[in-house]
Amino acid sequence: MTKPFFVGLDVGGSAMKSGVVDDTGQPFPNVSLPTEAHRGQEFGLERMCETIRQAVGSAGLKMKDIAAIGVATPGTMDIPAGMILDPPNLKPWQNVPVRDHVQRIFNLPTAFQNDANAAAFGEFWAGAGKSAHSMVLFTLGTGVGGGIIIGDFVLEGQHSHGGELGHMKIEMSNPRQCGCGRWGCLEAYASATAVVKRCQEALQQPGISSSLQKFCPDLRNLSSRAIFDAAAEGDTLADKIVEDTAFYLAVGATNMMHSIDPDMIAYAGGMIAAGDNFLNRIRKHVHKLAFPVPAGKTQICYASLGNDAGFIGAAACARQLYGKLAGSKK
Amino acid sequence: MTKPFFVGLDVGGSAMKSGVVDDTGQPFPNVSLPTEAHRGQEFGLERMCETIRQAVGSAGLKMKDIAAIGVATPGTMDIPAGMILDPPNLKPWQNVPVRDHVQRIFNLPTAFQNDANAAAFGEFWAGAGKSAHSMVLFTLGTGVGGGIIIGDFVLEGQHSHGGELGHMKIEMSNPRQCGCGRWGCLEAYASATAVVKRCQEALQQPGISSSLQKFCPDLRNLSSRAIFDAAAEGDTLADKIVEDTAFYLAVGATNMMHSIDPDMIAYAGGMIAAGDNFLNRIRKHVHKLAFPVPAGKTQICYASLGNDAGFIGAAACARQLYGKLAGSKK
Repeated sequence: MTKPFFVGLDVGGSAMKSGVVDDTGQPFPNVSLPTEAHRGQEFGLERMCETIRQAVGSAGLKMKDIAAIGVATPGTMDIPAGMILDPPNLKPWQNVPVRDHVQRIFNLPTAFQNDANAAAFGEFWAGAGKSAHSMVLFTLGTGVGGGIIIGDFVLEGQHSHGGELGHMKIEMSNPRQCGCGRWGCLEAYASATAVVKRCQEALQQPGISSSLQKFCPDLRNLSSRAIFDAAAEGDTLADKIVEDTAFYLAVGATNMMHSIDPDMIAYAGGMIAAGDNFLNRIRKHVHKLAFPVPAGKTQICYASLGNDAGFIGAAACARQLYGKLAGSKK
Repeated sequence: MTKPFFVGLDVGGSAMKSGVVDDTGQPFPNVSLPTEAHRGQEFGLERMCETIRQAVGSAGLKMKDIAAIGVATPGTMDIPAGMILDPPNLKPWQNVPVRDHVQRIFNLPTAFQNDANAAAFGEFWAGAGKSAHSMVLFTLGTGVGGGIIIGDFVLEGQHSHGGELGHMKIEMSNPRQCGCGRWGCLEAYASATAVVKRCQEALQQPGISSSLQKFCPDLRNLSSRAIFDAAAEGDTLADKIVEDTAFYLAVGATNMMHSIDPDMIAYAGGMIAAGDNFLNRIRKHVHKLAFPVPAGKTQICYASLGNDAGFIGAAACARQLYGKLAGSKK
């Protein structure tokens, strides 16, 4: 392991994950503690610090061995201010000064970042994007998240809304409603939740026959995993759902290729368990939708760090802050 | 006027425009010469140099007074290589080494940029975006072009396709075909050409009554200007076309607010003659489509440099190159 060492913390709706990462992006063993947001934000801030302490301990290190800390949280947020504002997944928290609290407790430089942005930065630093010059990451889970890295920097945006890629509009004339309450968002088509919903709707059409009706008699229990599995086994209806999902994701990818034009587009989250066949379907649609040069040259791949991307990316933010502070001392 | 001086050249399908610009973005009087692309690329390269010479002359200067040159051209292109590749608006040119030619002829540092990117950079430096930290420009003409400026840099993209905003997909289920041959692109909905086409289609519906039928009996002569004028005078059909156009542009703006999240979104090109009423319609739709924070904070406005944005932006690229070279000499 190469010094200096950084500690990253990824705060999620159900758990917090933290680990020490070395200067080359190699992680030490990580720890997880339940978030228990319902216990309030004071408790939450203390739980963040405790998770960081345990991570440093599980690396066999002391806090004095750590050069800087990075914390990634879900939104909404004010990144320059280091605050979570009104996070839907961390109720009832409001206006939580995460960065300043952690910085004060440990007296160490502390970086703050959106969780999907941090995951993208982690993949860019130490994962699938290691050799890329710029990268767009889509995270496919309950929702669709995103992160954009250009020239070694996270595109935070002017109002901390950079990379909210699940909420780009891809349909106008017959739009689905999104979890955000608005219409036509990518997330309303291509999240795991949307895949299940679209499949449930299709199964309710009269005269439809699918193996899913047998394997999952109560459609309320349907999962995106079951749909991808049924498609892999040749179920026509499930295959159509998967094919359409690949198309929707290709529309999202194309829109990034025609605006950001990155070196790499990567996908993370539970849905990438669908494997290479699904990735190849996305690539096939991109070739039809995008201009030939970006369609031919942009790498389209899966992320490689799994659930560790968040804390590794948070550590990458810590490392960037540390380098900036070191530079400014010259 | 403040030294150093830069000369910018904006190469278009029908004319080339060039002017000297001072260090603060103030332009001297500019000159235009016909492009005459059909006479071939050797002629074209000489015409570029001649336009630059005349611009310097019309500023009352000599070439030795110029610190650097910037050239902006339409695509397709390889920006780092300084080449136009296969430009649809400059047939029969192919693989034209613009930057190296101009640099050799004048023996001055020469920057090369896409014309829409240059226009965005010009507006950012010396026009509507002067006080912005980041900006997305949409140019509304025969097509829809775009340019993205983040942190003082043009987002060129990894494959010179950054800011091709006319070709973001905004419709999947019933997409219009775009001039690029693909489907569902913003340009197929919101260019001046698309506005005319959508209006012609609407006028061909049975039982339709519109003042446009009287003022423009041959629908082949319909212009976007006539449609915006008819809407302003209360024509119901024209008003619907204009309202839908504002909605399509708001979808494009929202997609940029949820990915780039810029300080400012600006519109340029002939269609902005439609005035404040049209801009307010775009803003109204953005407030429904986008998240509250970017919807409330992102400035949405018209560009201010008109047809001069291209050469002023090309000069801005020259100035940035000059600064970089000066910096690297330290």
